[in-house]
Amino acid sequence: MQTVAIVGVGLIGGSFGLALKKAGFGGRILGVSSETTLRAALETGAVDEAAGLAQAAARADLIYLAQPIGRILDTLHHLDQHLRADTLVTDAGSTKEMIMTQAAKSIRRCQFLGGHPMAGKEKRGVAEADADLFVGRTYILTPREPPELDTPAAREFREWLRRIGAKPFVLDAAAHDRIVSYTSHLAQLSSTALGATVADHVADDELAISGPGLHDSTRLALSSYDLWRDILATNTGAIERALSDYIQKLEHIRASLRTRELQEEFARAGKLAGRLRGIE
Amino acid sequence: MQTVAIVGVGLIGGSFGLALKKAGFGGRILGVSSETTLRAALETGAVDEAAGLAQAAARADLIYLAQPIGRILDTLHHLDQHLRADTLVTDAGSTKEMIMTQAAKSIRRCQFLGGHPMAGKEKRGVAEADADLFVGRTYILTPREPPELDTPAAREFREWLRRIGAKPFVLDAAAHDRIVSYTSHLAQLSSTALGATVADHVADDELAISGPGLHDSTRLALSSYDLWRDILATNTGAIERALSDYIQKLEHIRASLRTRELQEEFARAGKLAGRLRGIE
Repeated sequence: MQTVAIVGVGLIGGSFGLALKKAGFGGRILGVSSETTLRAALETGAVDEAAGLAQAAARADLIYLAQPIGRILDTLHHLDQHLRADTLVTDAGSTKEMIMTQAAKSIRRCQFLGGHPMAGKEKRGVAEADADLFVGRTYILTPREPPELDTPAAREFREWLRRIGAKPFVLDAAAHDRIVSYTSHLAQLSSTALGATVADHVADDELAISGPGLHDSTRLALSSYDLWRDILATNTGAIERALSDYIQKLEHIRASLRTRELQEEFARAGKLAGRLRGIE
Repeated sequence: MQTVAIVGVGLIGGSFGLALKKAGFGGRILGVSSETTLRAALETGAVDEAAGLAQAAARADLIYLAQPIGRILDTLHHLDQHLRADTLVTDAGSTKEMIMTQAAKSIRRCQFLGGHPMAGKEKRGVAEADADLFVGRTYILTPREPPELDTPAAREFREWLRRIGAKPFVLDAAAHDRIVSYTSHLAQLSSTALGATVADHVADDELAISGPGLHDSTRLALSSYDLWRDILATNTGAIERALSDYIQKLEHIRASLRTRELQEEFARAGKLAGRLRGIE
């Protein structure tokens, strides 16, 4: 892997460039993005060179699509004609089924391997890019068939993922989208709904009447709708089911406020929260 | 104020003792609690002396009730016969209406001033006590009538609250209970419901498929049911309303996943989250 093209040099794309360099990648990193973004990316060293999509696709051994999901779908549609047979195309989109379907249709000349790094910040853009963003984070890979992980290009990509500190985790696209509808999308919407409900019912000057709990529980509510629009539009069915399950749980809790049944829900939730923290 | 009695020397009571000392209180601090707790409290210096309730009530200028709400209600019931006329009784219970009602009935010989420090940790007990727990935190006071704040004993207590770094905020008990049903109790239950829903639908070995968002949003889910049982039982009506409002918001979000209406909810929630962080 001598040349990498990062398409969409925002928080994730920029961090991938910085992380590769920190991990010892000595090749060339091309950036495909808007002019303003590329200027910033060149300055921080996230990319070495600005390029157009066609030129980057023709030169790169690895093409890393880190745009918003809707833009990734669009790029996939236009990319194939420029690709070499030994290139690997991968992406960092937060939902996987629609991207995998589009890639199966559009990417013919080389291999496509779907990906999703479980890393992020509320603040976006290449200015927030961080060489350590992937350290210790799960990095989902969604091959259509397991042997796709063992092509020379995929092996080399996986090796770089390990070098930047990520923890690769293999999953099929449908399972990915179902699981993240609970672990990521529901967490986001529960926080957004909490923030909006508090805004509806608590006056600004009453907000001093809050503790660290509300602060933590509304961190995700700082996330931008622009980022979430595509996620919600490309995983709608799974998110609707997760929201229904959550609403049902809240109704059960409301009906159980004075009963010991609530103790079970606290225990169940506490055990999960502990597991997430590796306490058990 | 020469002698303070802390009744219930857990996280809050123990922190109050440590905070008073750090702020220069040179008087005597009596602790009323279980034997095991008192041993730990004496060791950390949160209290100077173990005492029984009757003895402590007769000696103290300030009686600080920091037990769980149910125990505070019980203590109020038994306290009056031991009190001196110049003593101030206050409490640190997380709901206020039931405590104020009970105090109005039971505390006859001296003044009662309700309180609620908006401070806490997931971990409880005097071992977690921290002299800085109240620093920068809102400390609600719920007088029945504003002049109750200007008695000599109340003025002195408020001065000590300022010295330990707390920010006193005056509110009537009903407004307090309504506001915290959104800013505290709903935040807790939304986190518990999220943790329990994820536990119901995501297998343990799939939990690696989660990011920092779920981690933050389930921090409150680590809270113990023991702490919450009394809160939920003494503010049930307000919490039911807050949960209904939250469920309605989630239903609106579910129905709007593919529409621009969701953008408004994200904006509303983001603005609130920003306000909580003093960004605006």
